[in-house]
Amino acid sequence: MVPHLITALTGPINELEQRILDSMPAIERWFRLEWMEHTPPFYSSVDVRNAGFKLAPVDTNLYPGGWNNLTHEMLPLAVQAAMAAIEKICPEARNLLLIPENHTRNTFYLQNVAVLAHILRQTGLIVRIGTLIPEITQPTTLELPAGGRLTLEPLIRKGDRIGLEGFDPCAVLLNNDLSAGVPDILKGIEQTIMPPLHAGWATRRKSRHFAAYQHVASEFARLINIDPWLIDPYFNHCGKIDFQARQGEECLAEKVADMLDRIRVKYDEYGIDQPPFVIVKADAGTYGMGIMTVKSPDDVRELNRKQRNKMAVGKEGIEVSEVLIQEGVYTFESINEAVAEPVVYMLDHFVVGGFYRVHTGRGSDENLNSPGMHFVPLAFDETCLMPDRGANPDASPNRFYAYGVIARLAMLAASIELDEALNETA
Amino acid sequence: MVPHLITALTGPINELEQRILDSMPAIERWFRLEWMEHTPPFYSSVDVRNAGFKLAPVDTNLYPGGWNNLTHEMLPLAVQAAMAAIEKICPEARNLLLIPENHTRNTFYLQNVAVLAHILRQTGLIVRIGTLIPEITQPTTLELPAGGRLTLEPLIRKGDRIGLEGFDPCAVLLNNDLSAGVPDILKGIEQTIMPPLHAGWATRRKSRHFAAYQHVASEFARLINIDPWLIDPYFNHCGKIDFQARQGEECLAEKVADMLDRIRVKYDEYGIDQPPFVIVKADAGTYGMGIMTVKSPDDVRELNRKQRNKMAVGKEGIEVSEVLIQEGVYTFESINEAVAEPVVYMLDHFVVGGFYRVHTGRGSDENLNSPGMHFVPLAFDETCLMPDRGANPDASPNRFYAYGVIARLAMLAASIELDEALNETA
Repeated sequence: MVPHLITALTGPINELEQRILDSMPAIERWFRLEWMEHTPPFYSSVDVRNAGFKLAPVDTNLYPGGWNNLTHEMLPLAVQAAMAAIEKICPEARNLLLIPENHTRNTFYLQNVAVLAHILRQTGLIVRIGTLIPEITQPTTLELPAGGRLTLEPLIRKGDRIGLEGFDPCAVLLNNDLSAGVPDILKGIEQTIMPPLHAGWATRRKSRHFAAYQHVASEFARLINIDPWLIDPYFNHCGKIDFQARQGEECLAEKVADMLDRIRVKYDEYGIDQPPFVIVKADAGTYGMGIMTVKSPDDVRELNRKQRNKMAVGKEGIEVSEVLIQEGVYTFESINEAVAEPVVYMLDHFVVGGFYRVHTGRGSDENLNSPGMHFVPLAFDETCLMPDRGANPDASPNRFYAYGVIARLAMLAASIELDEALNETA
Repeated sequence: MVPHLITALTGPINELEQRILDSMPAIERWFRLEWMEHTPPFYSSVDVRNAGFKLAPVDTNLYPGGWNNLTHEMLPLAVQAAMAAIEKICPEARNLLLIPENHTRNTFYLQNVAVLAHILRQTGLIVRIGTLIPEITQPTTLELPAGGRLTLEPLIRKGDRIGLEGFDPCAVLLNNDLSAGVPDILKGIEQTIMPPLHAGWATRRKSRHFAAYQHVASEFARLINIDPWLIDPYFNHCGKIDFQARQGEECLAEKVADMLDRIRVKYDEYGIDQPPFVIVKADAGTYGMGIMTVKSPDDVRELNRKQRNKMAVGKEGIEVSEVLIQEGVYTFESINEAVAEPVVYMLDHFVVGGFYRVHTGRGSDENLNSPGMHFVPLAFDETCLMPDRGANPDASPNRFYAYGVIARLAMLAASIELDEALNETA
């Protein structure tokens, strides 16, 4: 069962999907050449929104959770891609230390860690899991909802190396996005850390990512001869906001107004009969905290106390003072009247699978990745690797191929973004 | 449904499979390091025989047919691996010319060509098929048994480039093993040819392959601490045989006798209660022509006229004057009382899938890849990538993993063999 597009505006998207399908040889060759210049992240996931008239990434996660939502059939692809990634980054590695988020009660998250560790073990690595949780001072085994167990062990720092009791890893894989900053125990270690520490939210900014994406999308749009707007959401940012003190609010309202105007021009150009909206979210951070849907600049001016508090604080209680203003992209895919948003999973530069976040309680103009959300994962019923050029452009293998292309563009942007960040810190 | 081992002698093989499973981290790391030194063939398939007490490759094909026998589920793995292969060998390629065997009536073979072309097209390459058949002077479209069509086009040589009418390829992929020698039209062309011309049977010798394999198997056996004989069939060769003139026969008989003695020693050591046998086959060539099962040196001395004629001529009518004498490995897997032999498929250094050749009319000591054989392909029901260390060593994911390991050893041997051949011609 595959979500269907509920929009009647299938014209432009079908045109876009057709163009992507027809340009497949040019697209794949272009990616091959890009990967000669850029180093893909070890892994990533990209939230894609399909508005019928527009298909665009809205979030690129360099510490993807949710591996447990992939199907049994996708795991071999993930293992093969992980093999390729490890060959490139740390071929000599025997032992890999995986450091997850500091969750012990979110069993879905722990299930994700277990699947990720399983994929990595299938490449032949010996994988153990170290935790940053200070309360865990002994190996602690947790039961998983799908059966099986996960053992978290306390990290041990010895000189410039990090490890566990009796375990000296060659490389460290973070599944922890460092929202609370880089912990001292990880600073200055000599082992390879994947992704690099500057990929964490302590350093990373969404606005930097989307600036890199804008460049990638524009090149790609030239390649397949489309309007880049069809794959690229407008964005802007405000650097100095204090929601609680109501500072920087007018600047934000003006930028929102400006963006709504620009979107309106595009909607008119393409005959789109929907109200434009923008998403305001923390420029650093994840998990859909500090995020709101805005349809008018007054929405920003008229925030009530509760909304202000919600916007002011991101994950791990970190204060939000920088925000990204992003063109809202409707998600017009739905299944059983619930809104569905595809998430594409990648290891190295390979698309290994994906699933839909299906959310019954939310609208097509809302963020579907929010704290405590009750989403139902619906795995893609096919890989993103097998477009069928004999079928309609919106046949599911072709739609998944298009999603894989858009996700890879965002991942390429992340590669460029990380290279730039590295050059700045160097 | 998976074939089961019919031998009661499951002791040593379970030990071997257990050792392979336990050593998975060491094995995968060893392969990673080997692939830093050696270049895998673009593609390959390896016939593996499982005698219960011994698990060994008996043939390594650098121009694998049979891609049509892989399942729908294996194709994404094949596409992903092909992407990796093309990135390494010819990232800038747009157009790929595929040159198949000169068969037009073997529709199973043509189906294989169609699937292979499909896999390659899914990587974004524009693939067209050129034929060496002199009678095909116009694009010729053939109907395939599973539906679909295949168009063969005559090759056109222009200076140092080969192509088709209106098609200038960046690279050439041979699915033709050059048994009849390297055709003039392929000599000295400037495009990349995969596999290289010296991989063809005009140059290649099985005895060279198994010499390289012996070296690989011995290193691998040291790595996981097993007797190399458990994965390595004895071999020898005779260089100057004329079956029809009965020349070189005594030399062959002596080498057969010697090898039977050596096998008997091993069978005694492992308590194996089966008669040893050897396979005598053409040292150059494929398709199971010029091949016989020999249980006594007298079998060689007492060949009748028909047997001599059969041995004297290989594929494409090429005279057989060099033979490989190979320790026979029983295939003790069977399904519905038919003998089954696994064939493992690889693209680049990735195992992408495999199937069993199931043959009702043959014994466990016979070659199952023979001309006109009526084999039934039985696809592996799992990939070779997902061993389950919690399950028995002979559970099917584990057995397939072991097959994938043995096949990769043979493929690594082929890489070394081709490097050596290149150094000699250089």
